[in-house]
Amino acid sequence: MFEKELPVRFAPQGRTVGVVPGATVLEAAARAGITILTPCGSQGTCGKCRVIVREGAGPVTDAELEALSTEELDAGIALSCQRTVEAPATVEVPESSLLGSFHQILEGGRTPLERGLTAPVVKAYVELPEPTLEDGVPDFERLQREIGSVGVEPDVLPALPGAMRANGFKGTAVLAASGGADASRPRLIEWEAGDTAAECYAAAFDIGTTTLGGVLLDLHKGQEIAAASTMNPQTAFGDDVLARILHASQGPAELNTMQEAVLDAVNGLLKEITGEAGIAPEQIYTVTFAGNTTMQHLLMGIEPRALGEAPFVPVMGSSMTVRADMLRLNVHPRAAVYVFPVIGGFVGGDTVAGILAANLDEAQEPTLLIDIGTNGEIVLWHEGGLIGASCAAGPAFEGGRIGQGMRATTGAIEKVFVRDGDIHYHVIGHTAPVGLCGSALIDATAELLRLGIIGPEGAMAGPDEVPDTVPPAIRARVGDGAGGYFELASAEESGAGEAIVITRKDISELQLATGAIRAGITILLKRAGLAPTDLQRVHVAGGFGNYIRRKNAQRIGLLPSELPESRIGFVGNTSLAGARLAAASREARLRASALARETHHIELSQDPEFHMQFVDGIFFPAEDVINE
Amino acid sequence: MFEKELPVRFAPQGRTVGVVPGATVLEAAARAGITILTPCGSQGTCGKCRVIVREGAGPVTDAELEALSTEELDAGIALSCQRTVEAPATVEVPESSLLGSFHQILEGGRTPLERGLTAPVVKAYVELPEPTLEDGVPDFERLQREIGSVGVEPDVLPALPGAMRANGFKGTAVLAASGGADASRPRLIEWEAGDTAAECYAAAFDIGTTTLGGVLLDLHKGQEIAAASTMNPQTAFGDDVLARILHASQGPAELNTMQEAVLDAVNGLLKEITGEAGIAPEQIYTVTFAGNTTMQHLLMGIEPRALGEAPFVPVMGSSMTVRADMLRLNVHPRAAVYVFPVIGGFVGGDTVAGILAANLDEAQEPTLLIDIGTNGEIVLWHEGGLIGASCAAGPAFEGGRIGQGMRATTGAIEKVFVRDGDIHYHVIGHTAPVGLCGSALIDATAELLRLGIIGPEGAMAGPDEVPDTVPPAIRARVGDGAGGYFELASAEESGAGEAIVITRKDISELQLATGAIRAGITILLKRAGLAPTDLQRVHVAGGFGNYIRRKNAQRIGLLPSELPESRIGFVGNTSLAGARLAAASREARLRASALARETHHIELSQDPEFHMQFVDGIFFPAEDVINE
Repeated sequence: MFEKELPVRFAPQGRTVGVVPGATVLEAAARAGITILTPCGSQGTCGKCRVIVREGAGPVTDAELEALSTEELDAGIALSCQRTVEAPATVEVPESSLLGSFHQILEGGRTPLERGLTAPVVKAYVELPEPTLEDGVPDFERLQREIGSVGVEPDVLPALPGAMRANGFKGTAVLAASGGADASRPRLIEWEAGDTAAECYAAAFDIGTTTLGGVLLDLHKGQEIAAASTMNPQTAFGDDVLARILHASQGPAELNTMQEAVLDAVNGLLKEITGEAGIAPEQIYTVTFAGNTTMQHLLMGIEPRALGEAPFVPVMGSSMTVRADMLRLNVHPRAAVYVFPVIGGFVGGDTVAGILAANLDEAQEPTLLIDIGTNGEIVLWHEGGLIGASCAAGPAFEGGRIGQGMRATTGAIEKVFVRDGDIHYHVIGHTAPVGLCGSALIDATAELLRLGIIGPEGAMAGPDEVPDTVPPAIRARVGDGAGGYFELASAEESGAGEAIVITRKDISELQLATGAIRAGITILLKRAGLAPTDLQRVHVAGGFGNYIRRKNAQRIGLLPSELPESRIGFVGNTSLAGARLAAASREARLRASALARETHHIELSQDPEFHMQFVDGIFFPAEDVINE
Repeated sequence: MFEKELPVRFAPQGRTVGVVPGATVLEAAARAGITILTPCGSQGTCGKCRVIVREGAGPVTDAELEALSTEELDAGIALSCQRTVEAPATVEVPESSLLGSFHQILEGGRTPLERGLTAPVVKAYVELPEPTLEDGVPDFERLQREIGSVGVEPDVLPALPGAMRANGFKGTAVLAASGGADASRPRLIEWEAGDTAAECYAAAFDIGTTTLGGVLLDLHKGQEIAAASTMNPQTAFGDDVLARILHASQGPAELNTMQEAVLDAVNGLLKEITGEAGIAPEQIYTVTFAGNTTMQHLLMGIEPRALGEAPFVPVMGSSMTVRADMLRLNVHPRAAVYVFPVIGGFVGGDTVAGILAANLDEAQEPTLLIDIGTNGEIVLWHEGGLIGASCAAGPAFEGGRIGQGMRATTGAIEKVFVRDGDIHYHVIGHTAPVGLCGSALIDATAELLRLGIIGPEGAMAGPDEVPDTVPPAIRARVGDGAGGYFELASAEESGAGEAIVITRKDISELQLATGAIRAGITILLKRAGLAPTDLQRVHVAGGFGNYIRRKNAQRIGLLPSELPESRIGFVGNTSLAGARLAAASREARLRASALARETHHIELSQDPEFHMQFVDGIFFPAEDVINE
């Protein structure tokens, strides 16, 4: 019962992804690694998520008729949270609709000139007076006389005198922000003959445990010009961070192999995005990386053993800035590579980037940022303070420890819903289902809770215990056995040679994962003296967040059940969006440092209430607290 | 008529040199590359140049009886400017008698604690509390919590977590001054297990066009512990800086060859001094280099072509700080390598180091610092201002363009004097003479001027024109020929197979060289509104300065003839002494930067008076202006 996928091509990023008919453009963009602004929580009211759909668009919605003018609609402008895809589609995403866009940098009354001052790379074309016996100022000081006091990467100097003279002292100084205490003082990293000021690029990467995503930014035009993603090749050494830590801790050779693996993949992405944009890799002058603490350690070749054992201590909290040649990145060898600061061993640079991209610290009311995965990171903003924690949810959300669980890749049932008296599902990749991923498990559990087939404590009704209200087609799927099971796809439908089912044990795994996240949310709220309903906004970030249905996540208690659904919004890959901001703005880097420092890190396992809250969280919410 | 040389061994530097009997210990030390303080100008009055002569000392002088107590004399203490060497000798030079010594750093009321704050390398042994779940501060921030805010060389981080844990968080942080605007903020360059604070070394080098000199400093004890010198192997590519520039400008391969040559020689010296002191090269955490602008460019691999053409512009005036591994130096790979700031294309880091070592800017009265060589550097201090210039003297002082001229190496007549009615000479290296070096040419010319054999305009008397007062043995040495000649050594005495003579042409070359230096001095004095007699002190620096006789240099007009000889002092290798100061003191580096910036550079060839003064300087001074 799977549905055929439709290709959706995004410009200017040049990416194509497949989605099922009826999916919103916003969902398609999220799958393409393109994060569109949705401040209203996809209610179709703010109009910030506008895109231009060139072809393949579904009908104009009421919300769009309200939010957009006739001229805009005629021009193909649509709200990506409302408009669906009904045929192979081409979508143009304006820079202003992107999370972490250049426009975000410009917000808050800052002028383009001020943006120039905060840029991590500045190119300045100068025509210097040639030296004479009366004016014998040295070459570098001659440049400084024109552009002000800057530092210099020493290996620029050997070729500088010849390069300056070859072009009559007319050239472009490339100045990059440096790390450390003198970060505010840019350093000369290159002198290019003639005026190259218009060719100035940056790359930003999200180093996920599973997926690496990167974008290429044109700093001169202020625009994203390419995007790409790939699997993190370190998955060959283990699916989760602990497996990676164990492998890398075997010795320097293993650590080096893992570092090389991720760097090779990053270089591959660089090749892809520079090729797509038709630019020379040497014109990328700054690169940023955000990832969890372990991924960042491995990227830098830092031994991660201490991250795998209590008390899970990283080597350094601050951001790191190193030269690209130290990491053998295929960009300008003296490009400044910026790696995000971290909050703790399990609250890493991806979370800091997320806080930054979501502008969490600028919220006016209690706001929660949550990234759900094997490790869930939760940050609460309330009355000027940030509290962060990580919850070890385990691999259930990524299909781990689930009988027929799998990652959200081809063949995975990723969405389950009730329609016309039966269960329906979507499969990723236009194929027969071979298993189910975390989002389908959440969907199915939520639906079965609604149907009364699963009880609040997680027990599954046997065939004889199914409520009378349940339609026959669904009732027929309830099976007996060790604790019961529920059939999603029959053996005939399945591509796995057997029926795809959910068992009582699968539900238990989901309960443990959900309980950990819920306990984290509850403890953070308690520390802040808040009730769940005080939350005015919940930002769900990360790859997994893109796939889950809010109502279902609330139904199982993963997200606060008490909240109106409209307060929950998906913010997408905030790690990449934050990396983007840091690639385009030095001020974003300073903010990231401040955010990392100021976020109060709570070690949940040390909280005396943790175990009680965890046990509480294992139970699914009763129907009467659910806002449906 | 050469005299046998005596070996003089110096401790703790472990160097042995040969001198003629009757030479002062100060002269022997200068030859060993050890520069002893002589603030009174070797008058034997200040007592600062004291050494301990273990054996081989000549008789105690009247000046020593005056300056030293009986106990001191009994302990072997001598004034190095007074005491002669009469037999193979062993001399101990206390740190306090060295120019650029740790004691110099401590002067001006600074305490040892303050010295610690200014040290370019600080080792701090710490015992950090081990991380716990309650105290999960990252490793690097844990260290900072103990020692204060520092930066970090990024490649320290990969091994830091393991190293800290392997030793229970007890270890020694090695902090080195970095370059650039945050020079005041040291950077962590190493974490060593246990307490290694007592093993902390620095190396300082003078990169001369001809000779490389280096010393090893024990920063913990505050003592020089080894010294060595060697030829600059770049001499294979030309004797003077212009030849080097020409060779290096042929292409990247040639430049690289020349850089490798000097770096190999420096690594050789490092091997020698670390071997002598029995320390590991990896425990050298900072290295300093002072040399002329061209030598510094070649050392750093910077193309020097612009230094060889008007307007002779260096790539950078400021000091440079790079990591040792960038230069492949055999010290700690992250050691901070400091290269002196320069004043101009021909007034380089060696001059800045000289100003620093001679404390020129702390003089109370008009003071001149002069380094005589192929290129003469002159700096005048007067009323709070420094003026510097370079004079192209040409190669005559180093034996170049002199008929039988040669460098001051084995076989060179290096000293000429009249005794018992005849000419006598010293030869370097206990051998028959094969030529004469610059100091002998100055000596001979001065004596011949006194005898009336050379006239003020440089003409040599023919055999018939020699004044009657000239003793017969000297008269017999006057020869006829193209402009006349004077025989220093007969064909029988000579090791060259022919008589060693001075010709009219040789005198002309000396006049040109002297004229250039004198014109420089005169113009600097004029700019400052001073007469020569206003100079209260003249510091003669550099290798050549060690060999010349003040009276003779005054007689030919090379040094101001009008001054009492006592105002002229030899300060030795101030380039190396300045490099030493910078190796031991961060404050010295800051002072060097200020001195380089504040020294007003005069381009002599641009001075309208230069040519007139040059022509004036060619004439030897009349007898009545000479203070003899």
